Amino acid sequence: MQSENYELGMIGLGVMGRNLLLNMADHGFKVAGYDKDAAKVEALGKEKVKGEVKAFSGLSEFINSLQKPRAVMLLVPAGKIVDSVIEEITPLLDKGDLIIDGGNSYFTDTNRRAESLKSKGLHFFGMGVSGGEEGARNGPSLMPGGDQEAYKVVKPIFEAIAAKVKGEPCVTYIGPGASGNFVKMVHNGIEYAIMQLIAETYEFMRKGLGLSGDQMHQIFKQWNEGRQQSFLVEITRDIFAYKEPGSTTLLLDLIKDEARSKGTGKWTSQVAMDLQLPITAIDTAVSMRDLSKYKSIRVTASSIYKDSKQKVDGDQQPFINALEESLYFSTIIAYAQGMHMLSQASKEFNYDLKLDEIALIWRGGCIIRSTFLEDIHQAFKKNRALPHMLLDSGIADKVNGAIAGTRKIVSTAVAAGISIPAHAASLSYFDAIRSEHMPSNMIQAQRDYFGAHTYERVDKEGVFHTPWTAK
Amino acid sequence: MQSENYELGMIGLGVMGRNLLLNMADHGFKVAGYDKDAAKVEALGKEKVKGEVKAFSGLSEFINSLQKPRAVMLLVPAGKIVDSVIEEITPLLDKGDLIIDGGNSYFTDTNRRAESLKSKGLHFFGMGVSGGEEGARNGPSLMPGGDQEAYKVVKPIFEAIAAKVKGEPCVTYIGPGASGNFVKMVHNGIEYAIMQLIAETYEFMRKGLGLSGDQMHQIFKQWNEGRQQSFLVEITRDIFAYKEPGSTTLLLDLIKDEARSKGTGKWTSQVAMDLQLPITAIDTAVSMRDLSKYKSIRVTASSIYKDSKQKVDGDQQPFINALEESLYFSTIIAYAQGMHMLSQASKEFNYDLKLDEIALIWRGGCIIRSTFLEDIHQAFKKNRALPHMLLDSGIADKVNGAIAGTRKIVSTAVAAGISIPAHAASLSYFDAIRSEHMPSNMIQAQRDYFGAHTYERVDKEGVFHTPWTAK
Repeated sequence: MQSENYELGMIGLGVMGRNLLLNMADHGFKVAGYDKDAAKVEALGKEKVKGEVKAFSGLSEFINSLQKPRAVMLLVPAGKIVDSVIEEITPLLDKGDLIIDGGNSYFTDTNRRAESLKSKGLHFFGMGVSGGEEGARNGPSLMPGGDQEAYKVVKPIFEAIAAKVKGEPCVTYIGPGASGNFVKMVHNGIEYAIMQLIAETYEFMRKGLGLSGDQMHQIFKQWNEGRQQSFLVEITRDIFAYKEPGSTTLLLDLIKDEARSKGTGKWTSQVAMDLQLPITAIDTAVSMRDLSKYKSIRVTASSIYKDSKQKVDGDQQPFINALEESLYFSTIIAYAQGMHMLSQASKEFNYDLKLDEIALIWRGGCIIRSTFLEDIHQAFKKNRALPHMLLDSGIADKVNGAIAGTRKIVSTAVAAGISIPAHAASLSYFDAIRSEHMPSNMIQAQRDYFGAHTYERVDKEGVFHTPWTAK
Repeated sequence: MQSENYELGMIGLGVMGRNLLLNMADHGFKVAGYDKDAAKVEALGKEKVKGEVKAFSGLSEFINSLQKPRAVMLLVPAGKIVDSVIEEITPLLDKGDLIIDGGNSYFTDTNRRAESLKSKGLHFFGMGVSGGEEGARNGPSLMPGGDQEAYKVVKPIFEAIAAKVKGEPCVTYIGPGASGNFVKMVHNGIEYAIMQLIAETYEFMRKGLGLSGDQMHQIFKQWNEGRQQSFLVEITRDIFAYKEPGSTTLLLDLIKDEARSKGTGKWTSQVAMDLQLPITAIDTAVSMRDLSKYKSIRVTASSIYKDSKQKVDGDQQPFINALEESLYFSTIIAYAQGMHMLSQASKEFNYDLKLDEIALIWRGGCIIRSTFLEDIHQAFKKNRALPHMLLDSGIADKVNGAIAGTRKIVSTAVAAGISIPAHAASLSYFDAIRSEHMPSNMIQAQRDYFGAHTYERVDKEGVFHTPWTAK
């Protein structure tokens, strides 16, 4: 038995696993990697790093090279592969060792795995990793959840490799159980919503205002220098400028308008429905990706329904200013819905989530990082038990300043026949949540009328049924 | 062993089970009922009917009273109770007997049960039953799914008790497996959407136009006499007129604005997301029921955000006319999304659904029955393979005639701060599905930028990745 005392071992040397490992080595950690694919093992062996990274092609040799208690991280595709890898390594591990799943595993799978490994004396972490391949290499946002005591072993490594904002690492212990996966799932849901909101902004600019790629590039460049600064606005700015070498056409114009997805947005919406927690901006983003794939129906429908001209009348600049407000407003709603979902899940699953810290670690490294997350951090730092982000006075000031432009954009789009459903859903949600009286009494009356489902009253306690048809 | 040759036996004598049984007896069938609750058995025994209905308190006595092959119907709460009843009766049944679950069971549960019973030589049906207690007693819409051969035994009974429209019974063999439950689930999803659309119409009338209950009653009365004739419009008309004996206040105004739900709408949305099929009007209805329950957040938010006056300027009548168009248009979209979901599920699960027949049996008995279902029936009768309801020319004429009013209502509501999210979602969906070019190319560009997720192109075949940051 050799004993080389590597501080962390990574199983799965695809782009994410390899980059995280190299990131650790760069920060002076002595780490080991393993993959079934010999080519990936060989590739890792050739990487130049500041610290020490060793590639293994034998699993037990790899496991035995780790210092105890061992920390073995998995970056393999979510699903059955995670289970089979766990099954393979479990006999090689000792009590007290820690397995960390860094993939986008479904949170109930993580619960099941943690439970099963606990009975064998092993610790299990589900850790959300965001930032894509670039983030993994140079500083991701990390969302580890599991047993707090076990986290201490890997804390120095994760704090070293995570992105830094104002010197603070974008990683914190999230909570027990599958809370790390859950928080990452909601992160991805918010990501879906913001991407959809930006795509709709592009739609309005293109169809409503007739702006060119250059003009849109300039606008997003300007926005990214202000309160809208964010990773997704930044890359959109770049996308509006990108032409392939030798081409005069914007690459964006050559990309098919059929969006793909890997399922984390869908999970977010489905789980929110189980929690009875409305996240309409995220739902809409999921649905619009799905709708985009029905291209042949769309093409036929476009020839049948030509009712509106879409081009908007009037000066461009007031609309561009209003679009800035509308994207800002709707992005705040997307964050608010996601944070609300986290607070509800925290109660439901006893995660004891600290929303201020979650906002903090999302400020850097991850896909939804933005200047606005500082506002969210402040809101929940002021009041960790804030029932809804929109109830914070600081947030309210920002929201109030952006409503007029939002109403202008959504009502103009509706009248012109431009589809901006996530903007519309965000505004409708806002107008509903600020309603002391919703029209849901009508739904209760109908349910009682046809199904005797009963209702509650405003004038007395109890549950009531009315024989509506007996006069 | 007695042998009384009852033609069908009902387990579960709650309001739905009892009423269906009495409906059968009224049509001359000799039927039997069983319940664990002695009071319910006794109550059934006292009912006066034209035919013969016998109440049993002993399970084996009940089962033995049925003619073979036996038809045993369950109307018990969906979930574990269905399983325990099946477990209890299975040893008492013989090969070739048929169990019919008439509750709102989740369709995958029905698949599991059918599979398990098949191995024992028993047939199993999941049957959607719609119409509430009144429908069950006097004519429901029935959606039976399972083995087609086994259906013959109960077909005469179901055709006799179902609602009739122009002499045709509102029941047809739906398809194999859990197709009956699936179709009923989607029916309920559409029901959620239409109820929400009506509630929003009420919201606009109340907050935007300041109409009284009497005025809304008159408007819904008039609508119900025209193209909008439907069960839900009809009961809304009644609800706007209902005052409790001795009261001068509309009962509607005394009902809490917090909507409840039993989960079938949620299932519809969650399953649609698994099918990658957008049903945004239904999703929105589910979310708004959920949102309504956060009353204390709403009350606080209403004091923070008071940006808009909500009252709409101008003459009432043009808005009332536009509301008629908007409700008509959005209801069509809700039906279209539901039918699209059925056609996708039919492919995915090999249900071979006949959408023209489904529209036919929904015309009477069920909660979403309406004059417009005749239009839907005609559209799919003309072309059973119609990829989307909106592509039918007859439907298109009706839609085109209602767009202007819809745009007026949604843009006015957005500007005034009145929340009508399901109307907005229906219109956005329409504007997206009639888009030859959606902005989803932006989403694909972003995904490729940060995650190397690749994209397809319009100018050449294949799958591509661009190093967006390498210039």
